[in-house]
Amino acid sequence: MAVYPMTRRQKVYEGKAKILYRGQAPGTLVQYFKDDTTAFNRKKFDVIEGKGVINNFISSHIMQKLGDIGIPTHFIKRMNMREQLIHETQMIPLEVVVRNIAAGSLCKRLGLEEGKPLPRPLIEYYYKNDDLDDPLVSDEHILIFEWANTFELNAMITMALRINDFLSGLMAGVSLKLVDFKIEFGRLHGPDEDDVQIILADEISPDSCRLWDAITNEVLDKDRFRRDMGQVKESYQEVARRLGVLPDGVVLGRMDPVISPDEEPETP
Amino acid sequence: MAVYPMTRRQKVYEGKAKILYRGQAPGTLVQYFKDDTTAFNRKKFDVIEGKGVINNFISSHIMQKLGDIGIPTHFIKRMNMREQLIHETQMIPLEVVVRNIAAGSLCKRLGLEEGKPLPRPLIEYYYKNDDLDDPLVSDEHILIFEWANTFELNAMITMALRINDFLSGLMAGVSLKLVDFKIEFGRLHGPDEDDVQIILADEISPDSCRLWDAITNEVLDKDRFRRDMGQVKESYQEVARRLGVLPDGVVLGRMDPVISPDEEPETP
Repeated sequence: MAVYPMTRRQKVYEGKAKILYRGQAPGTLVQYFKDDTTAFNRKKFDVIEGKGVINNFISSHIMQKLGDIGIPTHFIKRMNMREQLIHETQMIPLEVVVRNIAAGSLCKRLGLEEGKPLPRPLIEYYYKNDDLDDPLVSDEHILIFEWANTFELNAMITMALRINDFLSGLMAGVSLKLVDFKIEFGRLHGPDEDDVQIILADEISPDSCRLWDAITNEVLDKDRFRRDMGQVKESYQEVARRLGVLPDGVVLGRMDPVISPDEEPETP
Repeated sequence: MAVYPMTRRQKVYEGKAKILYRGQAPGTLVQYFKDDTTAFNRKKFDVIEGKGVINNFISSHIMQKLGDIGIPTHFIKRMNMREQLIHETQMIPLEVVVRNIAAGSLCKRLGLEEGKPLPRPLIEYYYKNDDLDDPLVSDEHILIFEWANTFELNAMITMALRINDFLSGLMAGVSLKLVDFKIEFGRLHGPDEDDVQIILADEISPDSCRLWDAITNEVLDKDRFRRDMGQVKESYQEVARRLGVLPDGVVLGRMDPVISPDEEPETP
């Protein structure tokens, strides 16, 4: 088991791969990236040393770039090797999946061949509920059970397609195919009661994307872990290297948040 | 095993509960209702003597009434005790389910309490594929994998909601709650290449509807079979009796199509 930093910070939530602590400023959280790696609803578990650091760097980079094109995100800044400062949101209990190429559960569910390009991006929704194994749902279920309203659903669809376009381009630029990815959204509450904005939350990393080498189709994502292909960390590192986001001299495997020289620590 | 009539008719298709034979007129089929009863993708099987007769009468009655309100259906006429003459269609590989009250797989999938009324009718789609156990799909999958186009999907949704309204009324009139139902659609090809109409096909019966007594919530549908509640045939008969569709003196359990006196036989 990894050892997490002992601090006096208030833990708000602990998920499979991340911990959220209350931030210093109101409405902010500190998102800590763990090395814990799980698949199949925790049936498979391992600690991949340094994974949290890589994902923190990759996700920070992507969130920042998405902000640049006008996608609102929860990301404020990367604080250190393993932590980001983010806006606190009320999470929408959905995993929104965008698929460009058939892979994974889609192939199993519909009997498709893995690697078959889809005629257009396919959007799927999964209801976030571990007890139910995150079941696939449709827009009908989302609206009827009020997990999101029509306005929010449309905002998520529009953003998901824009994110897909941008990420496809970003990855193509470093010779990677964006096969599919999973994103989550939250409601950012403003000072007024009615002032609610849907923003991108959670993370975007090789934990949540399928990324294949554009030439060789080599798998460079969490499927290496799910399918016991080995070299999980090396693959994540390769993605980070191509994106140019891992600074030289980073010692992966350190469990405590390391403050990189150019950054302000957040006082615990 | 039930014994089916030996004829020289050409069998076009045999499903779990029905057999289709080529009809005499071009573009027509004879739909024969079997007593075979299956559930959970054939994992559970039994022969319920007379069930085919009851379902033939109930489905004929409902198809006719739906035709009266302008829903196009494949139904031409009931030929005898077990058979209907229908239009041949190219079946769309979807089960369209409309739910008014949470029950069955929906409750299991989303962790809902059975019997909870839904705030509005919920439409679900299942991809008809026994090998894949008829997986739930969304409009996205339907359009991307071209099981139906946007026009066809909209036609199915509009018809499904109208059928739900009409059937809810029909059942309420005989003190039954329409909990949910499954329908299937087909493409009826006209003389022109472009002349394609989406019409209701298959059947509507206690095999494909959940029907509860309006006062006692007594189950009067196939769940009696799925859940080993007994009195399956008696419940189907009760539905038929309330709808006033089973003529007096019908001997259920006869395996061969019996020509009722007021009807023309179709020469085999």
